[in-house]
Amino acid sequence: MADILFNKIAFIGIGLIGSSLARVIRRDGLADTIVACARTEQTRKTALELDLADHVTADVGEAVTDADLVVICTPIGAYGAIAEAMSASLKPGAIICDVGSVKRAVIDAVTPHIPEGVHFVPCHPIAGTENSGPESGFDTLFEDRWMIITPVAGSNEEAIEKVADLWCRTGSKIERMDPDHHDQVLAITSHVPHLIAYTIVGTATDLEDRLKSEVVKFAASGFRDFTRIAASDPVMWRDIFLNNKDAVLEMLGRLSEDLSGLQRAIRDGDGDGLEALFARTREIRRSVIEAGQHIPPKPPGDDIND
Amino acid sequence: MADILFNKIAFIGIGLIGSSLARVIRRDGLADTIVACARTEQTRKTALELDLADHVTADVGEAVTDADLVVICTPIGAYGAIAEAMSASLKPGAIICDVGSVKRAVIDAVTPHIPEGVHFVPCHPIAGTENSGPESGFDTLFEDRWMIITPVAGSNEEAIEKVADLWCRTGSKIERMDPDHHDQVLAITSHVPHLIAYTIVGTATDLEDRLKSEVVKFAASGFRDFTRIAASDPVMWRDIFLNNKDAVLEMLGRLSEDLSGLQRAIRDGDGDGLEALFARTREIRRSVIEAGQHIPPKPPGDDIND
Repeated sequence: MADILFNKIAFIGIGLIGSSLARVIRRDGLADTIVACARTEQTRKTALELDLADHVTADVGEAVTDADLVVICTPIGAYGAIAEAMSASLKPGAIICDVGSVKRAVIDAVTPHIPEGVHFVPCHPIAGTENSGPESGFDTLFEDRWMIITPVAGSNEEAIEKVADLWCRTGSKIERMDPDHHDQVLAITSHVPHLIAYTIVGTATDLEDRLKSEVVKFAASGFRDFTRIAASDPVMWRDIFLNNKDAVLEMLGRLSEDLSGLQRAIRDGDGDGLEALFARTREIRRSVIEAGQHIPPKPPGDDIND
Repeated sequence: MADILFNKIAFIGIGLIGSSLARVIRRDGLADTIVACARTEQTRKTALELDLADHVTADVGEAVTDADLVVICTPIGAYGAIAEAMSASLKPGAIICDVGSVKRAVIDAVTPHIPEGVHFVPCHPIAGTENSGPESGFDTLFEDRWMIITPVAGSNEEAIEKVADLWCRTGSKIERMDPDHHDQVLAITSHVPHLIAYTIVGTATDLEDRLKSEVVKFAASGFRDFTRIAASDPVMWRDIFLNNKDAVLEMLGRLSEDLSGLQRAIRDGDGDGLEALFARTREIRRSVIEAGQHIPPKPPGDDIND
């Protein structure tokens, strides 16, 4: 029951997110042709083997030629160079979207290279697991997750609607947001938690050997969750922190102040202060559950992750 | 196929951990009689309704009378008063164990009240969920989890073996450890991660209202895991931080230094430094998976939590 939304879709980068979207497009027959552009031969080979694409290439210009939709799914640090490389090959009326976790820096990097008559629709599906690569994707990844579109001044409404329509088919809930506001919200819901997880697991790796091996052995409880978060793709996260510097540093500043306050409360034996905070945070969990955001995504048949 | 290990077992406090152990004891017929002591009438009522105990009482002395094994399962801040209250009613040869997440402070609080001929075996099953109360327990909670015994000078070997035997029936893996070393390991695997989760969720609750509601709405990704951790019992955690002050503050000090380093790397745009750390933490996750500690406990039939 094919319902073609775009004749040709080009993926630039096809890891966890790109390959999950490609799976939905295949499953529902939403495109005639999928082309995947990837730098490494291994990724191109896997994309073909998994039938995520009809053609693969390492050349961005070749990939986007004749494409009706281009989906950029690389780490965001590469966006500027990719936009520049595709610029001359884009056909009039083509739509470009992306999946990056930062929006202001991405818009600033991509927009200057978008030719007249081509439409850029910045997207961010809030979904993921700690796994990377085309083999780690699955077609239910986006179900019941938010997909945020951050239009810019002069964004083409028709292009936005076409992109939203595609994401609807993944089961996403669509929301529009101002790019800067998006970056602020994501700094606290995603970027700073990841940074903290990386930090605490990093602190553990610096422990003397005996303590370190026991930390791994008895990782159950809190630390286990942190190691999972801190297993996410290093390059992707490097780029996120470098490109959402201001919002991340501002939230980290607030967090450091609050952490100092807690350190003091522990040192002073202020049990009432500690208990009051811990009761307050429990409330937030209740709100998260009410908002239906408490269930982590799970690859089908996988009881191990999350 | 009853295989009675203790004629009478008394639980002092019967929340998530105590009720899970009681369920195993019932399931395998490991005791003739279970008595549960709880402060609130609601807890006592629930314990009877769920058949976790044959008798319930609010009186510690009454609960431990004639008990062969006493299991202290309250927040650790109450241990001293409980040990004092039970002291005169303990029968000669009785064994006392506990389930507290801190061991040195617990030993210091309990030991002075243990009469001659009664044996204290400090225990810590490393298992749990963010839920509290007798209704949240389940009999597989301890399966494949570590249970650490931290004997003190002069601990009775026979008593240790009897307690270890009971915990073996839960599916736990038993390990012995020095109490101070235990507290250091748990500071980093459990206490500091919980404190960080409480802090970051607390920071979010202090955001201006609009941002706060969006943080809840888009909680998916990292923040979700933090809210789950930060939903754990406030009194239990207050007591843990107050009683493992030194180890927690020392680890927090290390963590603060590392966090400052990361802040600087982000501010300076040091991509190589960030990527190197993130790649290193990925290794630790691999070790945790190899150690079989990556799977969170799940109540039977529950796909929602964790």
